Amino acid sequence: MENKILVFGHKNPDTDSICSSLVMADLQTKLRGKEIIPCRLGEINEETKYILDYFKIEAPKYIEKVEEGQTVILVDHNEFTQTVEGIEKAKIDTVVDHHRINNFQTSEPLFYYAQPVGCTATILFELYTINNIKIEPKIAGLMLSAIISDTLLLKSPTTTEKDKKAVSELAKIAKIDIESYGLEMLKAGTDLDKYTEDELIHLDAKKMENGDIKYVIAQVNTVSIPDVLKRKEKLETEINKEILANGLSLFVFVITDIINSNSVAIVLGDRTDAISKTYEIKDNIAVMLGVVSRKKQILPLVEKNM
Amino acid sequence: MENKILVFGHKNPDTDSICSSLVMADLQTKLRGKEIIPCRLGEINEETKYILDYFKIEAPKYIEKVEEGQTVILVDHNEFTQTVEGIEKAKIDTVVDHHRINNFQTSEPLFYYAQPVGCTATILFELYTINNIKIEPKIAGLMLSAIISDTLLLKSPTTTEKDKKAVSELAKIAKIDIESYGLEMLKAGTDLDKYTEDELIHLDAKKMENGDIKYVIAQVNTVSIPDVLKRKEKLETEINKEILANGLSLFVFVITDIINSNSVAIVLGDRTDAISKTYEIKDNIAVMLGVVSRKKQILPLVEKNM
Repeated sequence: MENKILVFGHKNPDTDSICSSLVMADLQTKLRGKEIIPCRLGEINEETKYILDYFKIEAPKYIEKVEEGQTVILVDHNEFTQTVEGIEKAKIDTVVDHHRINNFQTSEPLFYYAQPVGCTATILFELYTINNIKIEPKIAGLMLSAIISDTLLLKSPTTTEKDKKAVSELAKIAKIDIESYGLEMLKAGTDLDKYTEDELIHLDAKKMENGDIKYVIAQVNTVSIPDVLKRKEKLETEINKEILANGLSLFVFVITDIINSNSVAIVLGDRTDAISKTYEIKDNIAVMLGVVSRKKQILPLVEKNM
Repeated sequence: MENKILVFGHKNPDTDSICSSLVMADLQTKLRGKEIIPCRLGEINEETKYILDYFKIEAPKYIEKVEEGQTVILVDHNEFTQTVEGIEKAKIDTVVDHHRINNFQTSEPLFYYAQPVGCTATILFELYTINNIKIEPKIAGLMLSAIISDTLLLKSPTTTEKDKKAVSELAKIAKIDIESYGLEMLKAGTDLDKYTEDELIHLDAKKMENGDIKYVIAQVNTVSIPDVLKRKEKLETEINKEILANGLSLFVFVITDIINSNSVAIVLGDRTDAISKTYEIKDNIAVMLGVVSRKKQILPLVEKNM
């Protein structure tokens, strides 16, 4: 495997990170005429499991670190705090992403395709089109699933016209009914009972850095916020452990109701002011009506208030 | 002008930075249906003057800084050390570049198109094609000139197949003979007699940072290296002044023979070892046979040796 190019999404992989790794490996294998290996930097979540089972696709290979000089392709992330161990000495060949650029640098020129759209897969869809590569139904299904996941069925404020257009064209190729498939898929990701509190706060946690300040914004999807809040005390205990262990200034645990598009967050740490300047915090809880997007709605707010 | 999007290349603008600003402004104006303003962050050099005169195109507007919240598009660079004053508080909408990514960050997602090709204009040419925008002859002439300049008539090791293909197609649209026009254009940039030594070392100087180490790699093109070396002593005086004034650890002044594709560098500072580990330095001079590219040949070497 040493000579092969590896492609992976971020740590604590969500559906976009897993699906886009598989899709990018397919695209790049076809473009370069040599096998590119899809990888993952963590456990597959329940939503993604549902998708891989549905399309009968094997999960990407798990890797923990890369060797010096390893050629890599990043999808759905760029920040070194969110990527594989050893990235500083790897050769970053290509990045396809839809996030801000931060904590990222290379010593050599590279391919970098970023767009402010709802999902990495939307950009990958464009790359298939630009390069005149035919999209197989299974690959279309993966891209479609990633977009549905990242945009919560095109309802998140991160959704753009490009995401909508991609979903509509991909649904035709994959022969999928968007609404019924999408809702089943999203619901599969909301079965949180099987996770311990410690697992829950790590499930989709993004570690951020702002100067010397380290903080985490974690997010889970649910169809019932009260169900998750029943576990508030235990969640707080785990979050406080995490803050101590990693010297965090802030931990925001966002619980998002995917049916009604609202969120409630458990907010702990020395810098809760980064949230409380905008949302009232009572008993460590901030109610965020109409908020579903970490990237578009919560992260910019925290950065502004820091 | 406050509400209009500004597009500019790096400080000490070379031909690619000026031409790509003009071209990107044309492309984005057509794509967005509203006027985008081409700008520049420094004086137009002799080579670029020749091009603008040839195609009868006005130089981009000079700007020194941008206001908070100003929307900007960067071409041919990304490093904050090379860009406009005030960038930290501007909104970076789009970047089109062919350099490594370094000293760059945003708080929000953006368009970022980078490819490891010889010239920014080669990527812009692709963007016209992808977006089905017709290229006017003058715009083709600007892109063609930028690629000829950055690749020294397709002879630099930075040259890729994409650059060659772009040049060939653009020459047809602009109705230009590549060889004769290209040589005249490059020669126009080698008239260095009119500059003072102080001006020469700033003409195309890129300021770099590696951790706490600040250094500069400057480059001039010539048809006669000995002619430039006649001014060695005065150049050294100016370079040493610059090192003192800006706390630089290294200043590499690269004199490139565009006809024979060789370079000679004047190397001064505490960290000349970053060059001497690879090239023997005698009397502050390193002879670099076959070296013409700062980006591809000199910068990676300095970074490796630091």
